[in-house]
Amino acid sequence: MINEKYMERLSKQIDELDIDAILIGPSKDLEFATGFLSQEDERFQGLFILRNGRCFYISPKLNKEEIEHILGKNTKIYSWDDGEGFTNTVKYALAENDLSEKKIAVNCGIKGTDLLDMTEIFRGEFINGIQIIEDSRIIKTKEEVVHLKKAGQIADEVMEALTSFIKPGMKEKDIKKKIIELFLARGSEIAFEPIVASGPNSSKPYYNQDDRIIQEKDVIILDLGCRYKGCCSDISRTFFIGKATEEEKQIYQVVLEANQAGKSAVKEGVTAEYIDRQARSIIHNAGYGNYFFNRVGHGIGFSVHEAPYIREGNCQIIKNGMAFSIEPGIYLPGKFGVRVEDIIVVGGNGPEVMNHFERNIIIL
Amino acid sequence: MINEKYMERLSKQIDELDIDAILIGPSKDLEFATGFLSQEDERFQGLFILRNGRCFYISPKLNKEEIEHILGKNTKIYSWDDGEGFTNTVKYALAENDLSEKKIAVNCGIKGTDLLDMTEIFRGEFINGIQIIEDSRIIKTKEEVVHLKKAGQIADEVMEALTSFIKPGMKEKDIKKKIIELFLARGSEIAFEPIVASGPNSSKPYYNQDDRIIQEKDVIILDLGCRYKGCCSDISRTFFIGKATEEEKQIYQVVLEANQAGKSAVKEGVTAEYIDRQARSIIHNAGYGNYFFNRVGHGIGFSVHEAPYIREGNCQIIKNGMAFSIEPGIYLPGKFGVRVEDIIVVGGNGPEVMNHFERNIIIL
Repeated sequence: MINEKYMERLSKQIDELDIDAILIGPSKDLEFATGFLSQEDERFQGLFILRNGRCFYISPKLNKEEIEHILGKNTKIYSWDDGEGFTNTVKYALAENDLSEKKIAVNCGIKGTDLLDMTEIFRGEFINGIQIIEDSRIIKTKEEVVHLKKAGQIADEVMEALTSFIKPGMKEKDIKKKIIELFLARGSEIAFEPIVASGPNSSKPYYNQDDRIIQEKDVIILDLGCRYKGCCSDISRTFFIGKATEEEKQIYQVVLEANQAGKSAVKEGVTAEYIDRQARSIIHNAGYGNYFFNRVGHGIGFSVHEAPYIREGNCQIIKNGMAFSIEPGIYLPGKFGVRVEDIIVVGGNGPEVMNHFERNIIIL
Repeated sequence: MINEKYMERLSKQIDELDIDAILIGPSKDLEFATGFLSQEDERFQGLFILRNGRCFYISPKLNKEEIEHILGKNTKIYSWDDGEGFTNTVKYALAENDLSEKKIAVNCGIKGTDLLDMTEIFRGEFINGIQIIEDSRIIKTKEEVVHLKKAGQIADEVMEALTSFIKPGMKEKDIKKKIIELFLARGSEIAFEPIVASGPNSSKPYYNQDDRIIQEKDVIILDLGCRYKGCCSDISRTFFIGKATEEEKQIYQVVLEANQAGKSAVKEGVTAEYIDRQARSIIHNAGYGNYFFNRVGHGIGFSVHEAPYIREGNCQIIKNGMAFSIEPGIYLPGKFGVRVEDIIVVGGNGPEVMNHFERNIIIL
């Protein structure tokens, strides 16, 4: 189903900014705009949004019937078949819509290789449209905040259930499997592949393996979240098996303090980078600045990662209704890592936290 | 673990073709080349392959430890953090490797938006490298053929198990769930989201919903496959619940004949489009040419879809060791569809079929 309000806001951006169209390829953006979740495929397809709410779609012929059903009869669909390739169809559609020499903002769902093929038949200019497209849904509606809260609550419950499930001797992948089951049992789906990083693996923020066996005295970072009615949660906690060393406890306290400082800095009118700095300075001042090498947070909503990005260099002004993570960490390569992550929504009465699971140190 | 032979062939392509480097972003290509399966993320990363087997990697800092572990100490890693963004790091790395004004072939894993950001710091030329990158693994090794066969055999077993499982009253999604369970129970993983398209949904080749209830007299297309030791299977069969009408039977026979004609056309030395035409002409001559609107097949191996693409306009010469699907279909919008798909490997003694599940009409 077309998300009329989102489409309207995107179309309005075209008037306000110096662009002539927005092109959205298969992605969460497309799903949010149209409800269409495409089968993973190498064939080019995409929604072109124009001024005054007009749009058209380029589709492989084998998707056409579905796209037509979703977009309705008022949206023109230009379809192409495998024998001819897609570029001539794009060329024809651009000409018919007076875009052949115009400026088109593209989203993250358009492949570089397709862009290169299109530049052979397009005399205008493509620009990076990620900011435009994500900014158009950056202020959450009241209904979305309710769903974000519910998604956060489900993630809290899953985290709680894991505290009694995790035992030495099980593999990281056993815990991963359990997380997925727990989310499904609560009527939600996973928003991203959960991270279960134990022992020395915990120093890798994006650890993506799952074969290690949990041992006594391990540090474990759990990073998980679900999608509930189109809204995502994302929470990280760091547990200790049996015992935490003095160094681990001390680092945990620094990260927790940074998490709190980040959240306390959130209010309408500050910049994204200001929030990043408030959290980061705690870690820097404790002497671990070199061991926190990513941004403090990312926006969240229909996508797990979207604007606003809470990082140095981002002067975007924080406004009521924005939702994002605060997730400082300290990662000591080859040793261990600690991360404490919550999602907050900016509100008139200060930041509202979507996660309530215990933040003080937990020894399992 | 680095796939030395693949990297060697890619590097050799740089010498043979008029390019200076190959850039591979997160994708099956990257996983095949390095064993690295990255967490889904918006941050730019990629492997640059140069002449003489040299290579370097651009990584977000938060992935660096893992990439280093996978690529070993001999591959230079240039890492960037969220505060600075990735383009300056790419600029520095390109300059250090004398690529600032050269020609770089990119794969399907590089986002268009990242390419646009990079053109601001790059004075050379990006070109579409999909063909180069896929052609470098287009001839399967004997070991790969053994795995393709095993993956095909598992898919046959799953199809067989489904013939007694599918009953009117269940939902498409129940069958989808069962397919995944059956693959997992056989020590394989799904190669792609299975397609279960029943009744009028069967006219959509890429049907991607799953809520319809199976009814008496339904047509059902099942399209499924697994990955076994890095090699994929992909099979489609069309079943009839209780009864098939005369029209359904007649169309089934046309599609089956097209499948056989496609397979019979396979031999070393013909072009990809020749095989497409042999299968397509059967459908065309039966009067259904307008209802078969996609290519006859796609290559398969580590990826479910890769070169060679069996389509009109592709003059690539078929060689021994290539593996691809033959999957003609007839799709009558709003009514029903039929597809019969097998995977074949080109061999000295003619095409070797990887799937043996019954092809004659099956009424459940």
